[in-house]
Amino acid sequence: MTGERLPSWRPGPTRDAIIGYLDGIGHVPVEDRVAYIDNDGTLWCERPHYVQLDFFVDALRRRSSDDASLAERPEFAAVLNGDSVAMGEIGLAEIAAALAGLFDGRTPDEFAAAVDTFVDRYRHPTLEAPVGSLVYQPMLELLDELRACDFTVGIVSAGGTEFVRRVSPRLYDVPPELVVGTLIGYEFARDDDDRPMLRRTVSLMGDANEGEAKVAHIQAQLGRAPMIAAGNSGGDREMLEWAQANAHGGLAILVDHDDAAREFAYESAAATFQDAEPITAVADRLGWATVSMARDWETVFPQRA
Amino acid sequence: MTGERLPSWRPGPTRDAIIGYLDGIGHVPVEDRVAYIDNDGTLWCERPHYVQLDFFVDALRRRSSDDASLAERPEFAAVLNGDSVAMGEIGLAEIAAALAGLFDGRTPDEFAAAVDTFVDRYRHPTLEAPVGSLVYQPMLELLDELRACDFTVGIVSAGGTEFVRRVSPRLYDVPPELVVGTLIGYEFARDDDDRPMLRRTVSLMGDANEGEAKVAHIQAQLGRAPMIAAGNSGGDREMLEWAQANAHGGLAILVDHDDAAREFAYESAAATFQDAEPITAVADRLGWATVSMARDWETVFPQRA
Repeated sequence: MTGERLPSWRPGPTRDAIIGYLDGIGHVPVEDRVAYIDNDGTLWCERPHYVQLDFFVDALRRRSSDDASLAERPEFAAVLNGDSVAMGEIGLAEIAAALAGLFDGRTPDEFAAAVDTFVDRYRHPTLEAPVGSLVYQPMLELLDELRACDFTVGIVSAGGTEFVRRVSPRLYDVPPELVVGTLIGYEFARDDDDRPMLRRTVSLMGDANEGEAKVAHIQAQLGRAPMIAAGNSGGDREMLEWAQANAHGGLAILVDHDDAAREFAYESAAATFQDAEPITAVADRLGWATVSMARDWETVFPQRA
Repeated sequence: MTGERLPSWRPGPTRDAIIGYLDGIGHVPVEDRVAYIDNDGTLWCERPHYVQLDFFVDALRRRSSDDASLAERPEFAAVLNGDSVAMGEIGLAEIAAALAGLFDGRTPDEFAAAVDTFVDRYRHPTLEAPVGSLVYQPMLELLDELRACDFTVGIVSAGGTEFVRRVSPRLYDVPPELVVGTLIGYEFARDDDDRPMLRRTVSLMGDANEGEAKVAHIQAQLGRAPMIAAGNSGGDREMLEWAQANAHGGLAILVDHDDAAREFAYESAAATFQDAEPITAVADRLGWATVSMARDWETVFPQRA
């Protein structure tokens, strides 16, 4: 297979559109070659739950076994009881904020260690796979192809930035500074030896990283507009439209989850972001490259060692 | 000179301390090798004015020649009259905010074009040099040496992020996403063809990037703590202490402006940040590597072509 481009992608219009686009940008300065790829549902599986949500729920279960009073808080009670009606009424944003508050006062290193411990023992509930096997093999190949074309590749997420940063180097070969998610604020403090340290707070810096905020946060944190963006949900719509509007002519890629046999079949609107128009309909209307998992991918997940 | 490390640095304890430190970190994982370097006064000349301040004042002069009413605003009157007493009373933070407001509503591309135009015609008022000749040759060599040791190098500034990002690739070979400064907020909008765009606002995202805020912003935007930090003013103190406290053992480097003959001689406290203790005294007390420009640098500015 040496030398074959996007080998896990089946020949057809989607693969042709991506390779044709990359073959046509030889005139574009390297500093303008920037691609931002959504994480949950675009680079790895987001069903039945976001992995990051599982991380926080796992932390809640451990904490509440030591402190039963935690279960009295409505957001936590809904989660611990798996009460999807109550969770829907409270809203994912409120629940996410309450869960993030479990790490209030922790240092970045303490949070990173908690993520590492969770990730090491995590197994997907139905696929029974570790995190490294939840990524989409064709998307890993797309990241490699983009880098071979001198693109700077960033990862974008509605989830908490620091969780994604902890897995992005290992899963995607993307360094922490190229991850843009929902940012928790930090408080400066000093330790017993008067040395500087940081503690997580319960407040966000900026907004939840969805929709219009994704565009504003990318500019603020990374400083460059995308030529290529890929996503899968209503929360990615503005970022994809922004890429398409690039002055060099952009490429917007939508991953459509239409493969119940190998993954999950659903129309994704992002849990915290409801668009009136289904994102697949937006893609058709605006002429984006829609990736049908069922049709366009020969392989979905990497072969396990 | 091929193969000589830090060739513009004179042999002595400061050069030895830096090279000795770099020679001793072979055991440190590459992902932990991170260095953050302050911009104004550390990488390039900040006297008699910050270059970015000159940029905004230049924009004010152009604008006020079309709109005389601008000069009625006290912040602008003080600047236009060169009234340093009034500027001191108002404070640089207030003046900077007013000046940044001159670009309220502009797109990132419009702001970048204004920076490019200014930078292309800029000449330093006393050194009569273009911006590329205001950088410190020994610090450019330090950046190269750090990268040769597999460091990720970021630029930190109290100035506006987007100005620094516009010059950092060309001056320092540092990409926009590795610049952390004072961030202006963006507003999402749509153009006449309903395509997404961003407009600058007058509000900051986060705080002015000085002191404790530098540490919090670096963590939030880049996600990694430094092993090495370099600065020159009271506004860099916490960042330098943070680097020194690194778990691998860090290196804090202070540039001391003690060379009136070749540059400027002054104790820098950062215009918006006054520490009770002079930063050179902090450096001595905490055992930082203090760079005497007069003693440690054979050359200050790059040789002009």
